[in-house]
Amino acid sequence: MIIVMGSHVTEAEIQGVENKLINLGLTANISRGVERTIIGAVGDERKIHKEALEALPGVENVMRVVKPYKIVAREWHETDKIISIKNIQLGGKTIQIIAGPCSVETQTQMDLSAQHVRNAGCHLMRGGAFKPRTSPYAFQGKGIEGLKMMRQAADKHNLLVVTELMDVRTLDAFLEHKVDIIQIGTRNMQNFDLLKEVGKIHVPVILKRGLSATISEWLMSAEYIAAGGNHNIILCERGVRSFETAYRNMLDVTAIPMLKKETHLPVIVDPSHSGGKAWLVPALSKAAIAAGADGLLVEMHPNPCDAWCDADQALTPDQLTQLMGELRLVAKAVGRDL
Amino acid sequence: MIIVMGSHVTEAEIQGVENKLINLGLTANISRGVERTIIGAVGDERKIHKEALEALPGVENVMRVVKPYKIVAREWHETDKIISIKNIQLGGKTIQIIAGPCSVETQTQMDLSAQHVRNAGCHLMRGGAFKPRTSPYAFQGKGIEGLKMMRQAADKHNLLVVTELMDVRTLDAFLEHKVDIIQIGTRNMQNFDLLKEVGKIHVPVILKRGLSATISEWLMSAEYIAAGGNHNIILCERGVRSFETAYRNMLDVTAIPMLKKETHLPVIVDPSHSGGKAWLVPALSKAAIAAGADGLLVEMHPNPCDAWCDADQALTPDQLTQLMGELRLVAKAVGRDL
Amino acid sequence: MIIVMGSHVTEAEIQGVENKLINLGLTANISRGVERTIIGAVGDERKIHKEALEALPGVENVMRVVKPYKIVAREWHETDKIISIKNIQLGGKTIQIIAGPCSVETQTQMDLSAQHVRNAGCHLMRGGAFKPRTSPYAFQGKGIEGLKMMRQAADKHNLLVVTELMDVRTLDAFLEHKVDIIQIGTRNMQNFDLLKEVGKIHVPVILKRGLSATISEWLMSAEYIAAGGNHNIILCERGVRSFETAYRNMLDVTAIPMLKKETHLPVIVDPSHSGGKAWLVPALSKAAIAAGADGLLVEMHPNPCDAWCDADQALTPDQLTQLMGELRLVAKAVGRDL
Amino acid sequence: MIIVMGSHVTEAEIQGVENKLINLGLTANISRGVERTIIGAVGDERKIHKEALEALPGVENVMRVVKPYKIVAREWHETDKIISIKNIQLGGKTIQIIAGPCSVETQTQMDLSAQHVRNAGCHLMRGGAFKPRTSPYAFQGKGIEGLKMMRQAADKHNLLVVTELMDVRTLDAFLEHKVDIIQIGTRNMQNFDLLKEVGKIHVPVILKRGLSATISEWLMSAEYIAAGGNHNIILCERGVRSFETAYRNMLDVTAIPMLKKETHLPVIVDPSHSGGKAWLVPALSKAAIAAGADGLLVEMHPNPCDAWCDADQALTPDQLTQLMGELRLVAKAVGRDL
Repeated sequence: MIIVMGSHVTEAEIQGVENKLINLGLTANISRGVERTIIGAVGDERKIHKEALEALPGVENVMRVVKPYKIVAREWHETDKIISIKNIQLGGKTIQIIAGPCSVETQTQMDLSAQHVRNAGCHLMRGGAFKPRTSPYAFQGKGIEGLKMMRQAADKHNLLVVTELMDVRTLDAFLEHKVDIIQIGTRNMQNFDLLKEVGKIHVPVILKRGLSATISEWLMSAEYIAAGGNHNIILCERGVRSFETAYRNMLDVTAIPMLKKETHLPVIVDPSHSGGKAWLVPALSKAAIAAGADGLLVEMHPNPCDAWCDADQALTPDQLTQLMGELRLVAKAVGRDL
Repeated sequence: MIIVMGSHVTEAEIQGVENKLINLGLTANISRGVERTIIGAVGDERKIHKEALEALPGVENVMRVVKPYKIVAREWHETDKIISIKNIQLGGKTIQIIAGPCSVETQTQMDLSAQHVRNAGCHLMRGGAFKPRTSPYAFQGKGIEGLKMMRQAADKHNLLVVTELMDVRTLDAFLEHKVDIIQIGTRNMQNFDLLKEVGKIHVPVILKRGLSATISEWLMSAEYIAAGGNHNIILCERGVRSFETAYRNMLDVTAIPMLKKETHLPVIVDPSHSGGKAWLVPALSKAAIAAGADGLLVEMHPNPCDAWCDADQALTPDQLTQLMGELRLVAKAVGRDL
Repeated sequence: MIIVMGSHVTEAEIQGVENKLINLGLTANISRGVERTIIGAVGDERKIHKEALEALPGVENVMRVVKPYKIVAREWHETDKIISIKNIQLGGKTIQIIAGPCSVETQTQMDLSAQHVRNAGCHLMRGGAFKPRTSPYAFQGKGIEGLKMMRQAADKHNLLVVTELMDVRTLDAFLEHKVDIIQIGTRNMQNFDLLKEVGKIHVPVILKRGLSATISEWLMSAEYIAAGGNHNIILCERGVRSFETAYRNMLDVTAIPMLKKETHLPVIVDPSHSGGKAWLVPALSKAAIAAGADGLLVEMHPNPCDAWCDADQALTPDQLTQLMGELRLVAKAVGRDL
Repeated sequence: MIIVMGSHVTEAEIQGVENKLINLGLTANISRGVERTIIGAVGDERKIHKEALEALPGVENVMRVVKPYKIVAREWHETDKIISIKNIQLGGKTIQIIAGPCSVETQTQMDLSAQHVRNAGCHLMRGGAFKPRTSPYAFQGKGIEGLKMMRQAADKHNLLVVTELMDVRTLDAFLEHKVDIIQIGTRNMQNFDLLKEVGKIHVPVILKRGLSATISEWLMSAEYIAAGGNHNIILCERGVRSFETAYRNMLDVTAIPMLKKETHLPVIVDPSHSGGKAWLVPALSKAAIAAGADGLLVEMHPNPCDAWCDADQALTPDQLTQLMGELRLVAKAVGRDL
């Protein structure tokens, strides 16, 4: 931690900061520059409340030197984290495409979806049984019944099940229906009680980025899960809120290499929710893989025009199959396979 | 709903949209312009999934005409909603200043806080027993014990208690300890399960705006609570995320008149979390009241330098008292009292 | 300047940074912490290219300690800058309301505007002779002829003239027609050649904030003008770009106290371009003055429905007169007059 | 244009809108829905000022149906625009990598740069003779002397010259020194007088996106150039301003397919200014090409640590050569060459 003192600082104020640091078990390194006096706090700065120092008289600014996250930091775990679930690996050389409908509607729709997902060459199926909808009047999901339908369809086609958990009270049902990967959605990235609960289990978690969460805040949310003991975390970039109105969200492709530098966890991308339009999915998917993503979360519906939600962003089964072929080439170009 | 067809649209595509609208129980008004054919959907557009229409062949764009919220819309309730709690009114002519520490620390701290809040002329006290913290290693709040301390301190000084609910599982404790106003924090604005739960009770709810929620999304979250039956909702603007790094959040002062036009619900402002610095609180508080806010949520701590969180944004008791005097003048200038 | 070295730094890398600093005429203060080695550069950091240090091997991060602007910084000029033009003062106790139409259309329209502006109690008139329009097909302004019309109308009613300069080649015409205050628009905040030219004269300059300029970048643009010798600079906040679509721009009210702390220059606000709607102007104007603004730039048109641009954001003459009365009360409440 | 009337609209207000439309040479299609009356304006809406309609009594909202740009719209020119300069094509099957230093420093540095650029397999060299710098105290470029150095170095190695024009007054010098492609920088995207000047010549123009310009505003700036007669326009995405502080700008990769749909003009990407760090360039470059970009603008310096500006974002010559090899694979994977 670096404490920059104001230009009219007094010796008493400098002393005050030094005393505070000593009380906190740290040492002060004082450097008197031409325009500013700077105090370096030597010791573990994660123990210090930045704000407590900023409130001290004479302090102009306090800057952190060390990143606030630790378990999820690559600095402390140099090797890539590879998450294995029933022979499927996330974070290794093979890129995983997780495909399926926005929401679980009927058993037939899920069976068809699973068949198409499998035929396209994917190993994981997504689908929402509990849906976070902006409007209270929109379809809220089939709930636990949806989990059952999804599990049944997935088992028939040998697929892993990925689905979103919104409420701590339904976690038991997720475990009972053997959800393979639990998704924490954008709106819950800082629902800390939910993060703590999935931190206590060992089912892998996809943690989607908040609508305008910084990479640091996002990693801190991952740290919440990791601090509870669950290190099987997959980060999912899904576009952030911006000023642009031509499409739904702005895919932050720079976040991919940045995360790869900062953390050893697998990073995937959701091109469907990013752009919000099916026709944007191929370009965004290729960009994500070219930038280093370990996987994608793609919406596919057996019949998009009849989908109960987000109809215009779902690929048709044929489009998914074609996309898989195109992505295989890009993956190969960056030394990966799919 | 207005459906704009692409420039190369065919009659079959126009027919397809018309059929879809008829299936949905609406009528189509077709207008063939110079460059575009436009279809107006006549009927209740809240029943239609915009996305389902966007997915139809030949459709370029779909625009909503009616706002998606209804119970919380001023269009349907012209008179200002006034929420009364034990003789205190929120949303009426009198502006309410809710003051208190960021977090509940000890009984002594809360007693002192309550005394200062009361002395400054406020009728409501804020304080966090459950704290949403970005870091899992930061102080997470005193929990239910904190609710007790707060209630006890407030009762001694005849104050109402305002505190944040983060988890559906603690709602019963909030009711048991007679929290007067339940706050839903920024990070939970779209925690729909939590919104549904507070929609079932009648305790007034302060709904803080999400970090980068649009006004429409925010009102839709209020609609979630209202749709459950609880119409005692207070909207709290607390600054939004922006590109500016000179301060913490950007106070969206324009949201105040915009909300006053769109909804009949009371609107308050949190100048402390907006700016993130105690010295910014007076200017932001005055701006909020001048723009038409019905109240403020202000951090005050008996001894900011020793606060367990957000130390640099809390006012001292003296600063609060002085601010109250200044705000009284501004309130009067805009025809309100305080 | 603080140089944070990476966690696996070598002695040679530390030495490299130290050598570079010595070459630049500075001294290095090296502090070896628990997790990071930190090098403080002692000397005038404005001389150093931050990027040149960041490019050195082993460097993780470089943080500035001192603000990059100097002439415009309050740190170096504690007293408020008051700009006097023909008995009118900007930046003093009296708040100045600059009113007038978006664009100069005809002599009659300008005469009428001037009369209404004067009747409302204002001393300065705005109006655009050169208009920055998003579309090449929109009305581009009356040009030099407009300057003449405006000057004539203003002289008749004893008003100062405020108008926008877009092109270095028209500066001579601005001087010839005795424009009292030259406005540099949002889109030209970083048109450095234009800034340099207005830095060479002594006519006061209103520098509008760029669409998403940080406060620091904005002050650096002011520094460009000041560095040329013209210290008569007025900063104008006019709303910034955001994700919100309910109104045009987001008025950054926090920028007002922040600028007042960082600079001694006068700060005004444009509530008309901020909100983009006439009905929002009163609330935003009051907020701006309550937060400490020294003036406003308000659009008024003798007949808004016939205005050649931005018709929906102009006040009518009656609305301006009423607003002036309301603002007088708010000004008084914060110890100013109007 | 669609005009949505407010819920309490009167017949007189509807009549008022209809009359206004008739005056403007358009026809009104009136549709009386359940909750709103909607008026469709039939005719060329580009002639209408949206704001003039919004200012009419009873109008709630006005929505455009047709895009405001025309010459640059793919709707009117279906085939990709290919720009040919001395055997080099931009916008065709071959992806062009434009490389070179941030700024022209010395003849030796430029000769070395040209040699490395050529050796890496590039055909175009970038370099700044006039530099838009945030600080007035930073190096402002070598000016016309820099143009000469660049031209000389480029000619020696058979390269095209790409450099930024900041001021209308230096355009003649650009033509005299035979700059092959004129760059309009981010800060000048809405410097309309500059756009008009480059619209009058036929030298190809790279138009960089403004810091937070929407795609629509950007295309309108291109329309300014095109309306003057110069249709040789290349759009350059270079990252936009966002809330994220982990890197400099957020590369808007979604803009690439979106532009490809909206316009027939070539689209290139500047990965160096986007991320602001050399180590981010490879990932961002691959993403851009995978998403469909027609070229890149990459910073390379013979000796980055000694560069006079933006040292930390320049690749070394070896890094450029390696990147070219990697990009060739990605280009091939998406059916292009390089």
